Amino acid sequence: MDVMILIGSPSDQEIVKDALDTLKAFDVPFALEVTSAHRSPDRTVELVRRGEAEGTEVFIAVAGKAAHLGGVVAAHTTRPVIGVPVESGGLGGLDALLSTVQMPRGVPVATMGTGKTGAANAALLAVQILAVKNAGLRRKLAEFKGRLAAQVEADSEKVKQGQ
Amino acid sequence: MDVMILIGSPSDQEIVKDALDTLKAFDVPFALEVTSAHRSPDRTVELVRRGEAEGTEVFIAVAGKAAHLGGVVAAHTTRPVIGVPVESGGLGGLDALLSTVQMPRGVPVATMGTGKTGAANAALLAVQILAVKNAGLRRKLAEFKGRLAAQVEADSEKVKQGQ
Amino acid sequence: MDVMILIGSPSDQEIVKDALDTLKAFDVPFALEVTSAHRSPDRTVELVRRGEAEGTEVFIAVAGKAAHLGGVVAAHTTRPVIGVPVESGGLGGLDALLSTVQMPRGVPVATMGTGKTGAANAALLAVQILAVKNAGLRRKLAEFKGRLAAQVEADSEKVKQGQ
Amino acid sequence: MDVMILIGSPSDQEIVKDALDTLKAFDVPFALEVTSAHRSPDRTVELVRRGEAEGTEVFIAVAGKAAHLGGVVAAHTTRPVIGVPVESGGLGGLDALLSTVQMPRGVPVATMGTGKTGAANAALLAVQILAVKNAGLRRKLAEFKGRLAAQVEADSEKVKQGQ
Amino acid sequence: MDVMILIGSPSDQEIVKDALDTLKAFDVPFALEVTSAHRSPDRTVELVRRGEAEGTEVFIAVAGKAAHLGGVVAAHTTRPVIGVPVESGGLGGLDALLSTVQMPRGVPVATMGTGKTGAANAALLAVQILAVKNAGLRRKLAEFKGRLAAQVEADSEKVKQGQ
Amino acid sequence: MDVMILIGSPSDQEIVKDALDTLKAFDVPFALEVTSAHRSPDRTVELVRRGEAEGTEVFIAVAGKAAHLGGVVAAHTTRPVIGVPVESGGLGGLDALLSTVQMPRGVPVATMGTGKTGAANAALLAVQILAVKNAGLRRKLAEFKGRLAAQVEADSEKVKQGQ
Amino acid sequence: MDVMILIGSPSDQEIVKDALDTLKAFDVPFALEVTSAHRSPDRTVELVRRGEAEGTEVFIAVAGKAAHLGGVVAAHTTRPVIGVPVESGGLGGLDALLSTVQMPRGVPVATMGTGKTGAANAALLAVQILAVKNAGLRRKLAEFKGRLAAQVEADSEKVKQGQ
Amino acid sequence: MDVMILIGSPSDQEIVKDALDTLKAFDVPFALEVTSAHRSPDRTVELVRRGEAEGTEVFIAVAGKAAHLGGVVAAHTTRPVIGVPVESGGLGGLDALLSTVQMPRGVPVATMGTGKTGAANAALLAVQILAVKNAGLRRKLAEFKGRLAAQVEADSEKVKQGQ
Repeated sequence: MDVMILIGSPSDQEIVKDALDTLKAFDVPFALEVTSAHRSPDRTVELVRRGEAEGTEVFIAVAGKAAHLGGVVAAHTTRPVIGVPVESGGLGGLDALLSTVQMPRGVPVATMGTGKTGAANAALLAVQILAVKNAGLRRKLAEFKGRLAAQVEADSEKVKQGQ
Repeated sequence: MDVMILIGSPSDQEIVKDALDTLKAFDVPFALEVTSAHRSPDRTVELVRRGEAEGTEVFIAVAGKAAHLGGVVAAHTTRPVIGVPVESGGLGGLDALLSTVQMPRGVPVATMGTGKTGAANAALLAVQILAVKNAGLRRKLAEFKGRLAAQVEADSEKVKQGQ
Repeated sequence: MDVMILIGSPSDQEIVKDALDTLKAFDVPFALEVTSAHRSPDRTVELVRRGEAEGTEVFIAVAGKAAHLGGVVAAHTTRPVIGVPVESGGLGGLDALLSTVQMPRGVPVATMGTGKTGAANAALLAVQILAVKNAGLRRKLAEFKGRLAAQVEADSEKVKQGQ
Repeated sequence: MDVMILIGSPSDQEIVKDALDTLKAFDVPFALEVTSAHRSPDRTVELVRRGEAEGTEVFIAVAGKAAHLGGVVAAHTTRPVIGVPVESGGLGGLDALLSTVQMPRGVPVATMGTGKTGAANAALLAVQILAVKNAGLRRKLAEFKGRLAAQVEADSEKVKQGQ
Repeated sequence: MDVMILIGSPSDQEIVKDALDTLKAFDVPFALEVTSAHRSPDRTVELVRRGEAEGTEVFIAVAGKAAHLGGVVAAHTTRPVIGVPVESGGLGGLDALLSTVQMPRGVPVATMGTGKTGAANAALLAVQILAVKNAGLRRKLAEFKGRLAAQVEADSEKVKQGQ
Repeated sequence: MDVMILIGSPSDQEIVKDALDTLKAFDVPFALEVTSAHRSPDRTVELVRRGEAEGTEVFIAVAGKAAHLGGVVAAHTTRPVIGVPVESGGLGGLDALLSTVQMPRGVPVATMGTGKTGAANAALLAVQILAVKNAGLRRKLAEFKGRLAAQVEADSEKVKQGQ
Repeated sequence: MDVMILIGSPSDQEIVKDALDTLKAFDVPFALEVTSAHRSPDRTVELVRRGEAEGTEVFIAVAGKAAHLGGVVAAHTTRPVIGVPVESGGLGGLDALLSTVQMPRGVPVATMGTGKTGAANAALLAVQILAVKNAGLRRKLAEFKGRLAAQVEADSEKVKQGQ
Repeated sequence: MDVMILIGSPSDQEIVKDALDTLKAFDVPFALEVTSAHRSPDRTVELVRRGEAEGTEVFIAVAGKAAHLGGVVAAHTTRPVIGVPVESGGLGGLDALLSTVQMPRGVPVATMGTGKTGAANAALLAVQILAVKNAGLRRKLAEFKGRLAAQVEADSEKVKQGQ
């Protein structure tokens, strides 16, 4: 499993749905685990250790509010860690964003935008990282980028016909 | 040592100076350690374990930016954990405040205001907690509260004479 | 009654529901009162006095917007005061959070996260404080912490089976 | 003394300097007192009572951070209360502003802008309120308003000559 | 008409409903007008002039987003002007609050909290200002304050019986 | 004078210095006036009227805090109005930005970024608008854009040589 | 086509509906295209080139979150570029607003308020800019401004009759 | 050159100083270029193309305010792009952070914290990404992580001796 995705609670499954689909579309093996930096700290460290042992190249941590999950994972590995701040509660994810991104010197977390879009992008960044040693993935990424642009053009046509 | 104070870097000594003086004034034994949730995660957990073994009743964690120190300590102990968000960088401590206070259900961190004032108040809250089982401390707290009010009155006199 | 919970209006009952359940689960005696720092200031001070006389060890104040309730209680007691900022209106609880946490030197309020999660954590922090003199509570807290971690593992199993 | 100005600490004297000068310029009798909503709550209430007994028509409360002073004063009087949020610390006065302005239904605080400008405007608003029953003050306010506009014109001349 | 209430659009009627009821309850004559600082600037100035001519003692301006209505009114009168920031759109009223409260030196706007609560408090502050020359209103305000406190006590009883 | 620049106080001269230099560099005639939406509202309207009469095509309004100047100008003209929010005080210009940009439907203010950069860009946008009917200005703008890009390349060379 | 409107996705059609109606009401020819600064960067540049070739005088860019569309367009043209920040997600459009307005020296984007109101105002600003060389549009703008004011007066009548 | 670092102006050299030192310490070949998303958009795209042709595996983009540099680079490559938001002006880097991180679906930018710390971490993340195909770098990263923890312990000793 090249990518390990850690979510803080079962309800975060909805948020990572597109991320999982993205990894599947690129044929990237992944594992999905629920764990919490605060409620199950030992399990979190153990998952990082197990992941490293089983060949995980990239970790994705999805968490809200005082979102420490990415930071805790990054504290225990030298693999790239991608953090996704969940939007929840009255502060709209600003708390999770700042808790994820403002890491101290020496321990980076590659932070994505908030919510589902951020989670989908986390999967894509993971693929981009894996592509550093996998020319096949890089080709697929180029094709994906082409489809993104083509989709925009198709959208524009539809809009113009609809007017 | 009833209280263990954890700071993220030697430069935080300035921020906790009044906190240490407060604990000394109340004759509360304490330990001061530098540790980081991210750069020295094992040491942090070990300090919590050692603190518990040596009778620490309250932990105080002082950290800035993506301030996870309080949360990591709280993940490993059932003792009360007090968090002090440090003001640093362009966001003025809002990042540290939200990273400290917005903890998930089950793992509270008693959050103080930002900076030196928050650190001094952390010491005082630690004394208030210890006073739950120490009538002597409670008496001293009542005297301290009296002096706070008297000081305000003295300040007012000085201001009026200065006009 | 070891804990006195003060809420600003009957509608805050919903917010403290899990907090009350937590205190019951730990067999901690508590009182629940409605009072307002601004609309019933004398009643608020009187409740603090009565609480102290009847053995209250920890106060919990739940309030929104310009949330002064925790501060007013802390001004009149040397017992630990826990503040819970309510999320309400367009500012999403940022107003209540800053009004609760940014206390001046000498008068700390142990601030929790916003909303129901913060309220539930306030109850837990109160138990942690009472455990300073009650070994039975500390044992229960350790069991609770164990169940938190076990629940995460169970959640993870369910998620993996659901995929 | 028609106006009572309450400041939280001697250092706030600098912030209210122009406010005092404004009141003197309008020949409005005033008192200046140092008091704190949190460190000297009884003194604060007593000052409000004394002020009302001695004919205070308007209270001005100047405070920073979790700025409760205006709210506490408003809780104890039916006279108009003007709040001035002090800019201090990393949050730039946003904490004091929200703590002052977001009052619950039934207890308004007339909030000014942050810092010295807000304090000077508090004095002016106090004069506007007193002018409700004092035609002489209303005339002076009209003259003051005329001078404000004339000053702008003079400033513009100077700028144009300086180019 | 002692009080003139200016709202930016018919939809703001909902926001000022309790404010109008408050003024009626205190038997304070008032006028309600729709006007906009930006769409009908001449009408706004004319309303201020007419209000002054007809004895308006206090103006209340209710506006959202770049809320200039209070500022424009204050630019043209020496009567006290109360500003109510409306919560609207994604910024939750923070835009309206800052646009209303951060007035320059010389032109204060007495700013209330956001939304309906702020509007109701604006009416109450207007009554407090009128009470400076009307002892009957001051008596009614004292009774109102008494009822506020009594209501809290009644609420508390109900909550305790409901448990 | 094709462009009229309105600043709120003589101290804003520093902020518009580069803006004036930009207009001079493009040979665009302009006038600079000090005026205030709040302290000199009649003068502000009169300046707009005079500007329109004398052929002003674009207005630039520079103001801080509750920055209403752009909005007031836009209320009285159908010419394009450019607003520049000044950074001042603890809120760093966020107040001025929101007060300038969040205009109601029907009365746009073309808002620039905060401070000196925003002011310089206001001058450039004014030139872009005038270029709609002035092919000479459009040519100069294209040359200016070319120089911007060339400057970046030169900067890069210098940096590489300095390493 | 005098105006080219660029939207980031088909779903933004709802946001620009009133903007299109405004341009139609002023008989201003326009084109509407879907394009993305990030997903279709080449198409975006090509649209700017094509627009310039076909006589576009003003570009309007509508985008949310890290809203770069206005900036990318402005990087490639010397025509005025109007940016409209879309409100989306938990940050309520603050992200899109700051991403649009805080442009570097040399490349202004005329930023409107957030959401539909901002989009409608973008259309109006475009008309104001075109009116620099089109006296007929200026007359229509004056009539439009008159109708805005008249509508306010009519609204006020309705509100007063409804009381 | 495995890593290409793009900065917006020569003054950003100070911000990336530690980042360059980090890359040198890990013996990672890199190029440093000045370019701007807005002032030199063609040069930016050309640098990305050249970088890809010459084997760049990771891009680092450092920019402030409406920080589009990372986004523009990511729009033109499938290599991982790391964004560093610069703290500048009154908003303290919040503008740059949101402009960098809130990318749309399909085009991720791996965002670091603000300022020098974020830049140093960008270099480290780049090394982590390169380590995916370079076991030597992974070993060095593990050693680096060990030194980080050892340094904390040494700091703690010094602090304790200084007391």
